[in-house]
Amino acid sequence: MPEVSGVDRDYNLWVLLHQVSDIIFNAREAELQEHGLPATQAEVLFVIKAIGDKVTPAQISRMMFRRPHSVSGIIERMKKAGLVKKTKDLHRKNLVRVTMTEKGQQAYKQALKRKSVQKIMSALSEAERQKLKSLLETLRNKGLKELRIDPKKAPPPKFV
Amino acid sequence: MPEVSGVDRDYNLWVLLHQVSDIIFNAREAELQEHGLPATQAEVLFVIKAIGDKVTPAQISRMMFRRPHSVSGIIERMKKAGLVKKTKDLHRKNLVRVTMTEKGQQAYKQALKRKSVQKIMSALSEAERQKLKSLLETLRNKGLKELRIDPKKAPPPKFV
Repeated sequence: MPEVSGVDRDYNLWVLLHQVSDIIFNAREAELQEHGLPATQAEVLFVIKAIGDKVTPAQISRMMFRRPHSVSGIIERMKKAGLVKKTKDLHRKNLVRVTMTEKGQQAYKQALKRKSVQKIMSALSEAERQKLKSLLETLRNKGLKELRIDPKKAPPPKFV
Repeated sequence: MPEVSGVDRDYNLWVLLHQVSDIIFNAREAELQEHGLPATQAEVLFVIKAIGDKVTPAQISRMMFRRPHSVSGIIERMKKAGLVKKTKDLHRKNLVRVTMTEKGQQAYKQALKRKSVQKIMSALSEAERQKLKSLLETLRNKGLKELRIDPKKAPPPKFV
């Protein structure tokens, strides 16, 4: 068997990172399904809670590192589900603001019961979690640089 | 400001992990776009290369931690783009096998030029990459357990 090169190791590490992200996402999705809330919609509720009401779709899109088009679709589905409402800005008519409805608030509270994430993270000690955080932050800043996004302007991962 | 609880820290760590995964995915997507190949399709080509030709859509789905339905759509688009072809199993007519075409092989070779991943990973030293790998493996195994998937039966992240 040929030796795994450094390039391959880097790629495998990225695949592993991507897999872990998918696995936790799936565990969380399974947990949230009990409340009929897709994990991506839960993420949007956390973003609205973090930035505050009257957030714009463009802000949500930046905070989630997702394309505006894809975020539009998610918000539209959430609107139909009665979780958010869209209002036009009084001063800039072409600007849309997104606010959480009462039903959205309830769904947010349910989503806060995030046992799956806690359970998975508990596999690491407190020190290991700190180490992981610092390693990921390094990769995050380097990645943002590659994407030519100023890390200072990018949202900190504080959705709570 | 209220103190951030342990639960919140776990959740923030997971959001950070998810963000880093998205950031590298986006950097890779930008890089692959030069060759007109979406990152997800590149991932499928790596899976076919890893498992070998005649892989089934179900195997691809398991290896990518994606729903069969979503993988079906990706494969259909790849078929239209001439990257793969689908053939029926000779013995089990309801079983579909996916193989790479000559054009798929070329696209795979282009996708191998994965400079963006290397560049981002180079922000960490060799020892840090090893540490990150070990931390992620711990989370991966715990996460698979939560999803009730036997880690031994889950695919190792070796797409090369």
